[in-house]
Amino acid sequence: MTANTKEATSKEEPGHAPLSVANTASNGPPPDVPPPAYQSHPLGPLTASEITQSSIRIKASWPSGTEIHFKIITLLEPAKAQLMPYLVAERAGQTPLDIDRRSFVVYSLRGTHNVYEAVVNLTNNTVESNAKLGPFQHANSDGEEIMAVEQALLADPKVQAEIAKLKLPEGTQIVIDPWGYGSDGIKHETESGKFYDDLRVMQCFLYMRDPENSSEPDSCHYAFPLPISPVIDPATLEVIRVDILPTGLDDKVEPLKPWQPRPPNEYIPEAQASLRTDLKPLHVVQPEGVSFTVEPFSEMGRLIRWQKWDFKVGFNQREGMVLYDVHYDNKPLFYRLSLSDMAIPYSDPRHPFHRKAAFDLGDAGAGIMANNLKLGCDCLGSIYYISGVLTDGSGSPVNMPNVICVHEQDAGIGWKHTNYRTNRAVVTRQRELVLQTILTVSNYEYILSFVFNTSADLAYEARATGVLSTQPVDLELSHTPHPYGTIVHPGVLAGYHQHFFSLRIDPMLSTSSAPILSPSTGPRNAIVYEECVPLPFDPQSKDPSANTQNPHGTGYTLRTTPILEPGGYDLSPQTGRVFKILSPSSHNPINNSPPGYKLHIPPMQPMLAHPSSFHHKRAEFADHSVYVTKYREGELYAGGKYTNQSRGGTGVRSWAAADRNRRDKLDAEGGDEPVVWVQFGLQHVPRTEDFPVMPVETTRVVLRPANFFDRNPAIDVREPSRQEVNCSVGLNREGEAGSSGKHEQVLGGEGGKLASVCYGGHA
Amino acid sequence: MTANTKEATSKEEPGHAPLSVANTASNGPPPDVPPPAYQSHPLGPLTASEITQSSIRIKASWPSGTEIHFKIITLLEPAKAQLMPYLVAERAGQTPLDIDRRSFVVYSLRGTHNVYEAVVNLTNNTVESNAKLGPFQHANSDGEEIMAVEQALLADPKVQAEIAKLKLPEGTQIVIDPWGYGSDGIKHETESGKFYDDLRVMQCFLYMRDPENSSEPDSCHYAFPLPISPVIDPATLEVIRVDILPTGLDDKVEPLKPWQPRPPNEYIPEAQASLRTDLKPLHVVQPEGVSFTVEPFSEMGRLIRWQKWDFKVGFNQREGMVLYDVHYDNKPLFYRLSLSDMAIPYSDPRHPFHRKAAFDLGDAGAGIMANNLKLGCDCLGSIYYISGVLTDGSGSPVNMPNVICVHEQDAGIGWKHTNYRTNRAVVTRQRELVLQTILTVSNYEYILSFVFNTSADLAYEARATGVLSTQPVDLELSHTPHPYGTIVHPGVLAGYHQHFFSLRIDPMLSTSSAPILSPSTGPRNAIVYEECVPLPFDPQSKDPSANTQNPHGTGYTLRTTPILEPGGYDLSPQTGRVFKILSPSSHNPINNSPPGYKLHIPPMQPMLAHPSSFHHKRAEFADHSVYVTKYREGELYAGGKYTNQSRGGTGVRSWAAADRNRRDKLDAEGGDEPVVWVQFGLQHVPRTEDFPVMPVETTRVVLRPANFFDRNPAIDVREPSRQEVNCSVGLNREGEAGSSGKHEQVLGGEGGKLASVCYGGHA
Repeated sequence: MTANTKEATSKEEPGHAPLSVANTASNGPPPDVPPPAYQSHPLGPLTASEITQSSIRIKASWPSGTEIHFKIITLLEPAKAQLMPYLVAERAGQTPLDIDRRSFVVYSLRGTHNVYEAVVNLTNNTVESNAKLGPFQHANSDGEEIMAVEQALLADPKVQAEIAKLKLPEGTQIVIDPWGYGSDGIKHETESGKFYDDLRVMQCFLYMRDPENSSEPDSCHYAFPLPISPVIDPATLEVIRVDILPTGLDDKVEPLKPWQPRPPNEYIPEAQASLRTDLKPLHVVQPEGVSFTVEPFSEMGRLIRWQKWDFKVGFNQREGMVLYDVHYDNKPLFYRLSLSDMAIPYSDPRHPFHRKAAFDLGDAGAGIMANNLKLGCDCLGSIYYISGVLTDGSGSPVNMPNVICVHEQDAGIGWKHTNYRTNRAVVTRQRELVLQTILTVSNYEYILSFVFNTSADLAYEARATGVLSTQPVDLELSHTPHPYGTIVHPGVLAGYHQHFFSLRIDPMLSTSSAPILSPSTGPRNAIVYEECVPLPFDPQSKDPSANTQNPHGTGYTLRTTPILEPGGYDLSPQTGRVFKILSPSSHNPINNSPPGYKLHIPPMQPMLAHPSSFHHKRAEFADHSVYVTKYREGELYAGGKYTNQSRGGTGVRSWAAADRNRRDKLDAEGGDEPVVWVQFGLQHVPRTEDFPVMPVETTRVVLRPANFFDRNPAIDVREPSRQEVNCSVGLNREGEAGSSGKHEQVLGGEGGKLASVCYGGHA
Repeated sequence: MTANTKEATSKEEPGHAPLSVANTASNGPPPDVPPPAYQSHPLGPLTASEITQSSIRIKASWPSGTEIHFKIITLLEPAKAQLMPYLVAERAGQTPLDIDRRSFVVYSLRGTHNVYEAVVNLTNNTVESNAKLGPFQHANSDGEEIMAVEQALLADPKVQAEIAKLKLPEGTQIVIDPWGYGSDGIKHETESGKFYDDLRVMQCFLYMRDPENSSEPDSCHYAFPLPISPVIDPATLEVIRVDILPTGLDDKVEPLKPWQPRPPNEYIPEAQASLRTDLKPLHVVQPEGVSFTVEPFSEMGRLIRWQKWDFKVGFNQREGMVLYDVHYDNKPLFYRLSLSDMAIPYSDPRHPFHRKAAFDLGDAGAGIMANNLKLGCDCLGSIYYISGVLTDGSGSPVNMPNVICVHEQDAGIGWKHTNYRTNRAVVTRQRELVLQTILTVSNYEYILSFVFNTSADLAYEARATGVLSTQPVDLELSHTPHPYGTIVHPGVLAGYHQHFFSLRIDPMLSTSSAPILSPSTGPRNAIVYEECVPLPFDPQSKDPSANTQNPHGTGYTLRTTPILEPGGYDLSPQTGRVFKILSPSSHNPINNSPPGYKLHIPPMQPMLAHPSSFHHKRAEFADHSVYVTKYREGELYAGGKYTNQSRGGTGVRSWAAADRNRRDKLDAEGGDEPVVWVQFGLQHVPRTEDFPVMPVETTRVVLRPANFFDRNPAIDVREPSRQEVNCSVGLNREGEAGSSGKHEQVLGGEGGKLASVCYGGHA
């Protein structure tokens, strides 16, 4: 393990002296920045002018004419020790102490592999740090780079020469999916010398459009993978080599042969032979408006209040949607919640597929890849859209419209009881508030949501959809089982792969009105797991006392295990293991137990790659469903800050190991600040049904109160399941429902029109 | 293990000679039954007149004046060997051979423990069999019996004497929850002699209403459990003994002491200090009507067609909702689907709680306990209600109105892809069709649904809600951890318990238009499980060939294991084990693999009770997530036909063992007819949040096509996520969405009214 994260605050920078604000700005003085229209809240996402200010400050730190490629300009959040008192004061209606606003900047010098990480103090307009990144720390990719790579490859004679061997039909359109190169530590001899994977490069997968439909730009090229995979330096746009892909059952690479025709497989509706006509519209209507409010807490930040919940919403380049300062009924729950990382390793062990392992947040960015949801019509009902602003390569702000949608949805019955003696049914519905964001990473889509409900649950849901990343397989093997994937279309193999998501939970649970702080001013929380264990029972025993407590063998009890050691922990469905975040210094008023939130985590198959493999080393979170670490500033991303072509050695596994090496224990009394990293995911064995676009695969983590409240927190949901409120439509004809044995007619599509009682004008 | 199921078809019956149709009917001749208005479909639930016909035939088989208590009169479904050709012919538009209609009847002679099982041939109006049940075979309970038990206990001097010791406030209302007695094999000495648990009895838990609010019949008595538990013979209404409950931390039973006041905990809305006023109505509107059709296939049976799905819906006393003959796009999928059983064992090992183990289907009946959903307003949108007809104790038909509701719901995005090169997003929504039924079993509610979707998934969902079954705990222990439960209210202990559901899946998968039949005329299906396994890798190896296939340690492949042995099988999240039902003699046209449906099963903690305990012996299904048996007539209920006070020895565990003893193997080629029993459930460690009524705990099994179709079955869902169709409401003011940095106002409850474009009159 040789990788080593260089701290962002390091001032040492060989070959480049960071400039202080006093230095002359070679690119001209900073422009006049208008005073912020809102109080500059320390959690407010960077504004357009702060992005501009940041890039100007960085440019000014370099000699005039230096061409800079900005990769990330994002809010550097204040240290928790500083921010927590701010938030407490803010909520108490006091005036918090001002906190300087800072931006975190990653950039490279164009045409080079030199990547820098800088911090700009926006409040006093200085560059606080500016350092070249160390080895194995590479910047993320971006759209500009990807477009340039695609163009360069199409124009490259070596690539063209290989394509020519395929003798593709006249007018064939080549489409290129650039991928991160991954890591394998292997040296390659190339024309320009030796090449190791410590150089930042990209591997690309080539496809063609349906030659019968070449002019359709949305033709699904994943149905036409080509066996050619160039490797390119995205900084210099030099093609390093062109790999030819194995297309059989083993790793043998055959010389390229002329392409054989095969059918297309399109997902666009106009290409379907027929479309269903019998799916009638379904509308969600809120005639009295929605139940939530949105107000700005900064120019870009939004404070949402809904059903006793309140929380701040941020948006950044890497994580996309972030929640801060989450409260329920004014009780602090979570300091910060976000998807921290994602890893998608593939199963195919053959070169070059063995390096296929995407880290879509660190390699690309859930923020910068976020969809404009309004254009996609991705939500139903009454929707509020939150927009963001990020940076382009030149350091100019880029509007990211409608990246988060906010809406309510019905989730079925919330609770119900019928007293069989009186026949009175009391039933309420479960309402949910959804904050949804969607990212497109080349072929794939992830639909990511925080879901709040009226019972004080908070869920995080991931839906995987989009198009499988495909590779060519010999047409004649179409009916032969393949060891590394599913043949989803003639000549098209969809490799097995795993999806790992890592949800970072930074809790501040307390039933007081403010978090209970540890000496380090962090919130005092503890992590435990509970299991149900049978009481001892020995049916063979002759000793009458042996089974005194459990004479019939039916008894079991609950065993609670505190987590004192930072590290990785597993689920255990066989023992019903449930992880809990507790506020150990509070007490439930009914039963005195520490108030908590439990974690419902769907089990996942841990990473299959060997612990000594780069897949495993890099995805530091993919081996356990739960990691617990001690809170440390800067430890935000489960796989480390720089995942692109990373070599491992940074991320939760390493942080927990470092804690253990320091013999740091978590304090059972909650004197420390634990951070919980929840891993969940999908083992994706593709089906033919997943092509040419896959139906969503959904997985959900739920945070649910456990002895946090003194009774059902939804008990005061107004008995709403009444016809006057619901405006439901009974489809049975009058007098029929409830009468058995009546002859009923076929109920056709005309049934169930608008309820005339509620929508008189339309029935 | 001494229990032994007596076959229903047995003609032997000591003490009672079954009568043939030729016998004189002592209760008078059968009445004129009007000709059925529909073809008497063999799967049609019994009609009111068939129920009457059945009870008349049974009464006629006894001497005049014999008082009969009918427990079950339900359709006896034809043998599969007879019914399958019928269904195939019916679908092919041919005229199927008529099949006699039969009813299955369970009844007792009033005032006795004698229980009988009979079959009435309705077509030729004969009693085909009529036999007294063997030992340990007891009838289910019913509402009439429960009401009688409650009244008898309240009037009983022994019970009154114990209650008097509590010195309850003047006017206190006692409320009684009768429970099945369970089994423990223990002999008790009573006034009337020795009593074993082979006698059919009930144990009852006593509660009182809030003495401050005694006149409120819906006051939550579960907040006031009393330490008195009478045992009663429901046939004779004799009180056998009155148990006093342990209320401390151990099994010590203290003499009854005067009751100490404690606060109430009500769930009815008018008793809440305040109700939320900020939850605005949410309506589901289908302006062009619904997308499904319902037509009768018999007087009581309903055929539903929706989005290429078609299936028949039945309803019976025990299982409630049953699906038959399920097809998608005319391809046969499932012959029969139902919840087959349920077991809820409790953890408390102390007498008499050690016997607390409910089998709500067999002990009571999901059909007879089904809620009238229209009265409860349990669904949202445009709803079709299906009603049932069952029997009362006198053998007269009882209408069960609105026991199943049918409606559509939106389930978020179904699939999406954005081509980042053209920025075109294609997105469709997932639509679901829900068939929901709800049963109330004393304190508890189960919301049970089949959920079909547009991607050809079929899910079965269980939601647990209602009120915890509570027991008293000493008030002074309220702040002490209890080994067997959670204190959810002062003086109220909610014991730990497990919920096991068993979904019975009788498949007929085939991609042909008709099931491929085995020699026994059953459908040829096979069961396998798949796991992802790493390729061999030895990082220490000096042998260059050791890692040839997996040089970087990243590779894995899929391993398929056929299930050839009937028995119980476990999930294995660590290996990503997925069970599949395959049609081995069909072939996917794309990749030649056998078409299948895979099972997404949530893991459960298996039963904690010891294998030698009665809880474990009785719940034959609660130890494995999957059971696979060979299809045999009459094997419908995972815990056996008679669960009330059962002793085990009948159910899936025994059936599979019998198969193995016969050395019966399942045929890998699918020559047999496997039945799959999926167990799933909840480990319920109660929270204070679960009282006085619990928010739903939801769990879901999904059956999902896997290489059954040649491509995404939802590809032809008309791109519906368009504003013209969705009629969504954007809450941001015009021009704001997408523009970052604008000052936005607080969005209040008035936002999001009806979209004027769609509902002009209401905006």
